[in-house]
Amino acid sequence: MLFLYEGLLDIMIKASKRSDGVSYAIRDVVIPAKKLEKKGINVLHLNIGDPNKYDFDTPQHMKDALFEAAKAGHNGYAPSEGYLELRQGIIEREQKRNNVTYTPDDICITTGVTESLQILLNSALDPGDELLIPGPTYPQYTLITRFNNAEPVAYRCIEEDGWQPDVDDIRKKISKRTKGIVLINPNNPTGALYSKNVIKNILNLAGECGVPVISDEIYDDITFDGKQCATATLAKDVPVITFNGFSKVYLVPGWRIGYILFHHSGELDEIQDAFMRIARSRLCANSVCQRACIKALKGPQNHIETMKQKLKKRRDFAHKRLNEIEGISTAKPEGAFYIFPKIEAMKKDIWKNDKEFVLDLLHETHVLVVHGSGFCSTYGKNHFRAVILPRLETLETAFDKLEQFMNKKLKTT
Amino acid sequence: MLFLYEGLLDIMIKASKRSDGVSYAIRDVVIPAKKLEKKGINVLHLNIGDPNKYDFDTPQHMKDALFEAAKAGHNGYAPSEGYLELRQGIIEREQKRNNVTYTPDDICITTGVTESLQILLNSALDPGDELLIPGPTYPQYTLITRFNNAEPVAYRCIEEDGWQPDVDDIRKKISKRTKGIVLINPNNPTGALYSKNVIKNILNLAGECGVPVISDEIYDDITFDGKQCATATLAKDVPVITFNGFSKVYLVPGWRIGYILFHHSGELDEIQDAFMRIARSRLCANSVCQRACIKALKGPQNHIETMKQKLKKRRDFAHKRLNEIEGISTAKPEGAFYIFPKIEAMKKDIWKNDKEFVLDLLHETHVLVVHGSGFCSTYGKNHFRAVILPRLETLETAFDKLEQFMNKKLKTT
Repeated sequence: MLFLYEGLLDIMIKASKRSDGVSYAIRDVVIPAKKLEKKGINVLHLNIGDPNKYDFDTPQHMKDALFEAAKAGHNGYAPSEGYLELRQGIIEREQKRNNVTYTPDDICITTGVTESLQILLNSALDPGDELLIPGPTYPQYTLITRFNNAEPVAYRCIEEDGWQPDVDDIRKKISKRTKGIVLINPNNPTGALYSKNVIKNILNLAGECGVPVISDEIYDDITFDGKQCATATLAKDVPVITFNGFSKVYLVPGWRIGYILFHHSGELDEIQDAFMRIARSRLCANSVCQRACIKALKGPQNHIETMKQKLKKRRDFAHKRLNEIEGISTAKPEGAFYIFPKIEAMKKDIWKNDKEFVLDLLHETHVLVVHGSGFCSTYGKNHFRAVILPRLETLETAFDKLEQFMNKKLKTT
Repeated sequence: MLFLYEGLLDIMIKASKRSDGVSYAIRDVVIPAKKLEKKGINVLHLNIGDPNKYDFDTPQHMKDALFEAAKAGHNGYAPSEGYLELRQGIIEREQKRNNVTYTPDDICITTGVTESLQILLNSALDPGDELLIPGPTYPQYTLITRFNNAEPVAYRCIEEDGWQPDVDDIRKKISKRTKGIVLINPNNPTGALYSKNVIKNILNLAGECGVPVISDEIYDDITFDGKQCATATLAKDVPVITFNGFSKVYLVPGWRIGYILFHHSGELDEIQDAFMRIARSRLCANSVCQRACIKALKGPQNHIETMKQKLKKRRDFAHKRLNEIEGISTAKPEGAFYIFPKIEAMKKDIWKNDKEFVLDLLHETHVLVVHGSGFCSTYGKNHFRAVILPRLETLETAFDKLEQFMNKKLKTT
């Protein structure tokens, strides 16, 4: 029967058309970096928003809680919507921190914010629908919107104003097909912390147009000067869907525990119901880690202040140092752990685009950052994203190398 | 400004059309059961394939390994494709158990088999494509295929032959749009263990038609009489995509660690590349649990034999006892932990359909099973799925109640 198979080697089974455009800047630049590392070269990673790769560690009581949970037998499936105790803990946090009241049915625990976003967009988007997304944005918003055959529409964020959303631009871009306005606050990749006024103006606009606001607040407690204001706190009657999770503030990105919060007066009933039906079909988020997160909310919170203090020093240094480098300028991040400098020198046509800049920098200096166009082809291009997570000494080395690289490149043109 | 919002309460924001049809029989019957439990009623759960809800527990060395992993700092992101050590462990297992050779690049660790399936179908299916799926099937195959605007085509499995796939029926149903033939072996919901001959015949057919085989082997080591034969072992030049994971055999369903294996000679390059690009965009599977799974593969395996012995007794009892009940008949499961009896009494028009039977049984006896039509509207209807996981005493009580219920219902008609 072997002859039957002989033709097969020539047959390429086609991938789906939708998968064509999928690429993920943040992880895609890792591939050339890995090639260097295979040759024994030490790469300075300023590319991934994972505090645990640097000198930040999960609080000990959470690690203990994880073991306790495994010992106590929480290794089977959790409820699809997440453990009730965890949802209750989140309700308490929301009440205390944001003065917003939720019921357990308004919450679903997911495999990171990624899964909340996937299920939400699966629940809400029909082909041709539009989603208003900050420019620049966390790339998954663009990717998953496109994957649902809907259109991500980037609205401008104002670099000169610390990357605050441009409400006039949002107003111009709202259409009958707009299914939601996305806020990411504090922002990835810019580190912007949205002012109350901007949030209020966006909510007013959303209210006028009958469009819900989708607010990604995964970095909410990581701010350096001001305090983050939750969108739902200011929402009044405007429906708000909030994403949050434990990855960043509780230093467990690998545990993949995120959640979604529905805040509305019935307008989102259909979408919430669809969300829960899809959530039930995919079983549950990690059970043992959910149990440990229950303890995380109840235990000591002092690691947050420690983290913020460390990050603030690194933010101050990165902001000052990057602005000293010729051909580079940067706004000051107010939260999260990113900085999004502009490559002023792009005007000089040394590089075809910012991705080429990033690869050139990587190969010449072994410093790895992510190209800005990976976060938005319009409002992100000619920038790069660096994390401010490494120790000061590492940041110093990296920025010294960047400076030498820039000086060399600018001299030869 | 408040007046702006006043109209909003009447605006229902529409869910996506695709989300309309999503329901998940296995978890949907839990909602009426929970209502009973809220009233203080004790429900006998024979509905969920979670051994850890019964008298099966994760091996102690895996719990210890989880704690060690958290202490050692594996709480940040894992590589998108999974830790290399885990993929190497899987390679060794595949070589030893199935005599199949993989490289680390052929493997991706995912959040359960569910995520492997989601990403694979996202990567492979265009609208209008077809996927050949066993009838009855694990419902996610149908759901996720439909969600990709593709068509699940159920092929018959032969109840009289212990639910072996009907190769002639597969042949009849293969078309130019067929993107894959799904096998689930051992099978959920029927407990069928596919004979080598049937697998070979399906592979031959797939080879003839240039269609890859998708083989779900999550229950591979849970068999009672024979040994499961991996599809890839017999595949020769036919491309085979295998799903597996730790949930069932290693008793950690809540950890959500599954994986996909690509076995081909280039035919699947495009799909595999698309898979990996999508996988990179969603970050990673749970990091600490991946680390513990590395140890699971290296540590003692004796819990598997213990589990099989316990399950075999329960299988024997369930098979014998269910066949004694009037109006019920059942094939003998050879693997996994399910039994899929036929409700012969459906002929008598006592219930409108099998879901009504299940709800009637639940409300009258507080025994919870899942309706067969939830697994396939054609080949699953007029059946129900019960797990054989509970202790013998519980199974005895449940089946006694079922018998009384059947006798009562059959008498009154």
